[in-house]
Amino acid sequence: MDNNLQDYSHKRYNILTGEWVLVSPHRAKRPWQGQNEAVSNDNRPAHDPDCYLCAGNTRINGEENPDYKDVFVFTNDFAALQTTSPVFSVDEGLFKAESEQGICKVICFSPDHSKSLADMEVEDITKVVKTWQAEYELLGSNEAINYVQIFENKGAVMGCSNPHPHGQIWSQSTLPNEVEKKDHHQKAYFDAHKSSLLSDYLKQELQANERIIYQNNDFVVLTPFWAVWPFETMIVPRHNYTNISELSEAESVAFADAISKITKAYDALFQVSFPYSSGIHQAPTNGQNNAHWHWHMSFYPPLLRSATVKKFMVGYEMFGSPQRDITAEQAADRLRALVV
Amino acid sequence: MDNNLQDYSHKRYNILTGEWVLVSPHRAKRPWQGQNEAVSNDNRPAHDPDCYLCAGNTRINGEENPDYKDVFVFTNDFAALQTTSPVFSVDEGLFKAESEQGICKVICFSPDHSKSLADMEVEDITKVVKTWQAEYELLGSNEAINYVQIFENKGAVMGCSNPHPHGQIWSQSTLPNEVEKKDHHQKAYFDAHKSSLLSDYLKQELQANERIIYQNNDFVVLTPFWAVWPFETMIVPRHNYTNISELSEAESVAFADAISKITKAYDALFQVSFPYSSGIHQAPTNGQNNAHWHWHMSFYPPLLRSATVKKFMVGYEMFGSPQRDITAEQAADRLRALVV
Ligand SMILES: O=P(O)(O)O[C@H]1O[C@H](CO)[C@@H](O)[C@H](O)[C@H]1O
Ligand SMILES: O=P(O)(O)O[C@H]1O[C@H](CO)[C@@H](O)[C@H](O)[C@H]1O
Repeated sequence: MDNNLQDYSHKRYNILTGEWVLVSPHRAKRPWQGQNEAVSNDNRPAHDPDCYLCAGNTRINGEENPDYKDVFVFTNDFAALQTTSPVFSVDEGLFKAESEQGICKVICFSPDHSKSLADMEVEDITKVVKTWQAEYELLGSNEAINYVQIFENKGAVMGCSNPHPHGQIWSQSTLPNEVEKKDHHQKAYFDAHKSSLLSDYLKQELQANERIIYQNNDFVVLTPFWAVWPFETMIVPRHNYTNISELSEAESVAFADAISKITKAYDALFQVSFPYSSGIHQAPTNGQNNAHWHWHMSFYPPLLRSATVKKFMVGYEMFGSPQRDITAEQAADRLRALVV
Repeated sequence: MDNNLQDYSHKRYNILTGEWVLVSPHRAKRPWQGQNEAVSNDNRPAHDPDCYLCAGNTRINGEENPDYKDVFVFTNDFAALQTTSPVFSVDEGLFKAESEQGICKVICFSPDHSKSLADMEVEDITKVVKTWQAEYELLGSNEAINYVQIFENKGAVMGCSNPHPHGQIWSQSTLPNEVEKKDHHQKAYFDAHKSSLLSDYLKQELQANERIIYQNNDFVVLTPFWAVWPFETMIVPRHNYTNISELSEAESVAFADAISKITKAYDALFQVSFPYSSGIHQAPTNGQNNAHWHWHMSFYPPLLRSATVKKFMVGYEMFGSPQRDITAEQAADRLRALVV
């Protein structure tokens, strides 16, 4: 690979979204006098009587959580999307709006308040994977739901309002912006090449062998060439499945193993429970031919230099393009060394 | 306007970028147990001997700042873009990268370390406006520079590493993502209608009179119909100038007045020096016909509920679409009441 990429400002193209990221490798050396994040307290009890996600506790709406033993799913008490809202649209000149229906759920990964995915056994993460699969199928079979977004916000710095290990699903009637982009670019590639964009990308990554962090029989964990967040990674299935419900039993375990490996490496990086938002992008459930989709999971972690100094995506990034200081290759090298 | 917009989940279309924002008006009521931001200490001295932006002080590279009296511009000591970097490109299958040249500058708005734009006289803000105009022209006349991004990150929560009142300019050889989108949508509209997209939008906003916060002879401050950030606003010139250097003397003062009014209203909202990133989107300096551009300035402030609780653009927002809890109309009502 061109050595200039490690030394000089350049932009890299994201084949999935069609957007660019500005990379300024020489800039990592600048001093930081800005905001420091609080390091979250990791000495949490296994059960917190004040946590509305712990087993047996009462939620804000008066409902009592069951005495669950592994994964627990419920409809978000403050859902951003609902199925009961009316259908309407506004089309007045340059004012354009559409009603949006949907279902939002919360998934507790474990009854143990003190844990995160990084601390859980592969066996227990596999139960989370199976819940995602079941929810993708269940929600996707609903007439009103054409897309199912599975994600996790981990850590206070990522807007997580409760440290109990949990993720969310927001499912809805239309495709969100980011999914539209990936749909478009994967479709164009599939139509032109008769193979999935990520299958061919994965081949090239495995051959280049510069951004691979970990691989098992069924999954590859890598830093994408166009990574935006300092230690952004992507888990890509070797097989071009369109969605997670297509995984076999063994593949589901291999997926859990990949999640376990990368989240543990993250925690080891700055010796802190590593904050991130993660999400699974997969085929819409709109009943159309989505053969061009190759599902994948991404991690967008904000920490840059240490447990307390994050990358801010602000002025230039909001008005121009995302910008990063360390290269994808440098980030991959550091994470690879931490996989155990 | 359709009352459903105030009560039920819907998405609104951004005519400038072609993207959607999810609005969930019923959701503002949910409790917050998440991160609280530190309130920045506003008792700063007029001159801080440790500030590398104050007059007379020495910067990290050993250069001494002049004893400036109003605005002071210098080249960023840790520039993300440089003119000296080599020209190269990578085009290996699905790995695509291009070198990027550019010039990054820092603009101190005032020698007074304790001030922000909200505390400055219109006369002094006018000097900042004039500096932006001069820099747009100067940088834009450089062969290597085809786009000039003027922006400000204000407040530690917006990644600002020094509270001294200052903004930045990152200018570069290609158009960043967000500018590409606005270029595309403004051009399509202009070609079809022979008028600028924002001129027609402004007419409609003035008629609807639901999101206007302030207006003077030459500028309108409003909450765009498709606002993403809780108290996002836009300053739109009534005249369809393509860039800020076209403003007359009187219009430059009117622009400074608009900035003064909205930043003061922001500070009054939660009785705190209001953090935001602001930026000016205007015509590229690529020597092409950019008659379709109608320049404007936007403010993206993160605070949502109070001086310490911000909106997090995380999981769903990163993987799906931006999402907001209060409507643009509610935000405009609150800000309008605070303009003095
Ligand atoms: O240039 P500064 O103030 O050091 O840095 C700040 O603004 C830049 C431009 O938006 C961002 O890339 C940085 O993440 C942010 O901390
Ligand atoms: O749903 P929560 O955990 O209350 O909220 C968190 O995740 C949501 C989905 O990404 C965001 O909209 C919120 O800003 C964030 O604080």
